[in-house]
Amino acid sequence: MSMTRRTLLAAAPAASAAGLGGGPAAAQSPAPPPALHRYAVGEVAVTALHEGMAARPLDASFVRNAPFEAVQAALERAFLPKDQLPITFTPLLLTLGGRRVLIDTGFADNGPPTTGGALRALAALGIEPGQIDAVVISHFHPDHILGLRRKDGSLAYPNAQVLVPEAEAAFWMDESRMANPPDPLKPTVGAVRRAFEPKDIRVERYAWGKEVLPGLTALDARGHTPGHTAFLLESGGHRLMALSDVTNHPALFVRNPDWSAVFDMDADQARATRHAMLGMAAAERVAVAFYHAPFPAAGHIAKAGEGYEFVPLQWGVNPA
Amino acid sequence: MSMTRRTLLAAAPAASAAGLGGGPAAAQSPAPPPALHRYAVGEVAVTALHEGMAARPLDASFVRNAPFEAVQAALERAFLPKDQLPITFTPLLLTLGGRRVLIDTGFADNGPPTTGGALRALAALGIEPGQIDAVVISHFHPDHILGLRRKDGSLAYPNAQVLVPEAEAAFWMDESRMANPPDPLKPTVGAVRRAFEPKDIRVERYAWGKEVLPGLTALDARGHTPGHTAFLLESGGHRLMALSDVTNHPALFVRNPDWSAVFDMDADQARATRHAMLGMAAAERVAVAFYHAPFPAAGHIAKAGEGYEFVPLQWGVNPA
Repeated sequence: MSMTRRTLLAAAPAASAAGLGGGPAAAQSPAPPPALHRYAVGEVAVTALHEGMAARPLDASFVRNAPFEAVQAALERAFLPKDQLPITFTPLLLTLGGRRVLIDTGFADNGPPTTGGALRALAALGIEPGQIDAVVISHFHPDHILGLRRKDGSLAYPNAQVLVPEAEAAFWMDESRMANPPDPLKPTVGAVRRAFEPKDIRVERYAWGKEVLPGLTALDARGHTPGHTAFLLESGGHRLMALSDVTNHPALFVRNPDWSAVFDMDADQARATRHAMLGMAAAERVAVAFYHAPFPAAGHIAKAGEGYEFVPLQWGVNPA
Repeated sequence: MSMTRRTLLAAAPAASAAGLGGGPAAAQSPAPPPALHRYAVGEVAVTALHEGMAARPLDASFVRNAPFEAVQAALERAFLPKDQLPITFTPLLLTLGGRRVLIDTGFADNGPPTTGGALRALAALGIEPGQIDAVVISHFHPDHILGLRRKDGSLAYPNAQVLVPEAEAAFWMDESRMANPPDPLKPTVGAVRRAFEPKDIRVERYAWGKEVLPGLTALDARGHTPGHTAFLLESGGHRLMALSDVTNHPALFVRNPDWSAVFDMDADQARATRHAMLGMAAAERVAVAFYHAPFPAAGHIAKAGEGYEFVPLQWGVNPA
């Protein structure tokens, strides 16, 4: 998604209004440990890291092609607030053939105060940032890449190889575009410059349709951004589709796959990708993970009327 | 529920077959910290403690009044295994007017190896067992009371007042029943003797329709057991219904409130209670918690066809 840092920071004070964390009840008790949830996909341990949340103020502009009343009815049906959307960020940690691999980063210490949980969750697991071997990036929106570096500019995962989608790099690292971006692209261009321009980062580009790392195949999921990528994780006959930002909040966009969030750069292409991938997940009953689904952000997709239903994975039960 | 300790222990080896914890992927990584999730109900902090899970082997006897094919279809619809049911245990920690209160206990160290998480979760919060001021018991089935004591017989919460339903105590502590119980009641009678006969425990009986503690009202929910109790928590205009074992797994018994699990002692009364309480929760859109729903075991109830749908609370978002 393309929230700018300023939007996110502006949204942070609204967090308590949306019922995120905090409040008098929380003040009475010590802070709970960071949230994470582990499940197995064959031989691969997948750990959902609760990076945190941000409340997105809602108005008629958020879903570009649906009446605001319909959006609010969908939120009411999900027992969610109707004036702001609680958006979750969930990077994944994989133990893949002995390597520790992150998919996307969150914000590290560059985000609103309701984020930054992924680094704390790694610490709770006893994993030092220097022990992360690779970071696989799905696309270049700031909430996915800002966490490659800390606020002071240093690499958050100093020993990691950073694997980025070829098509995404081609678009955002185009010299003329970087030099003079149109306004809507500026926040992402800024995040890309910050992450990738310093020479201390080890970046490699990967292609769609091939294994990024053994067992992890990159899937063309363009539309949300020009190089937006999903992943198929396969191990021991088990599969997980990590669908990145193919949909934003499932209560809105899995239920109503034709709806377009403001974050999708090419709404028509994003819609086609969404239908194709949700349809495949439903037909094959394959487990899915989303970056923006409610934590722990994994489950299955079932056909439901004109759209689909997201059925969260039961805590502690591995996908079939 | 009325699983005996023997059933639970026997079920434990089946845990990995049901995809619970463990497996080669888990072996590669350090154990994750215990799971807990906090949300606010007005001024009250509610913390769901993940006591753990047990896999209940399934056959036609589990749901007494539905064809096994229908039960398996409901499990398939929920993307769950069809030959065993992963049953979760979720005691609640409340900070209620400055006191630390547990609702039900789990097993402490008396359960299968896939349980015992509540004590670990309290430790992760920095709470000593001696700092628990009260334990409110919903009913006397072993998975709710065994954790009042450790394996060595000592009190797990040595400074807690233990509050039990009057009707439940009248039934299970009846001297003639305790002396010579019919076979199906023996496991619970054994657990009751073990928990309550030693003189070191401070027990007080509470009545339905009154506040057990300020803001926490006991509700007559008989049927599952003769004194089975639900709770209404109210604070600052916010409400939560803690529905105890009004239903077992929501994928089966919220969807199909007419179905009766073997655990219900009076199936007809339990069904009437289930319809009444799910109907009230749906009509008033009040948040609910269940002891046996998938962790973190809280959400809302929506009418769906002939039954209801359990909509899990979004992680990090307080109920309205």
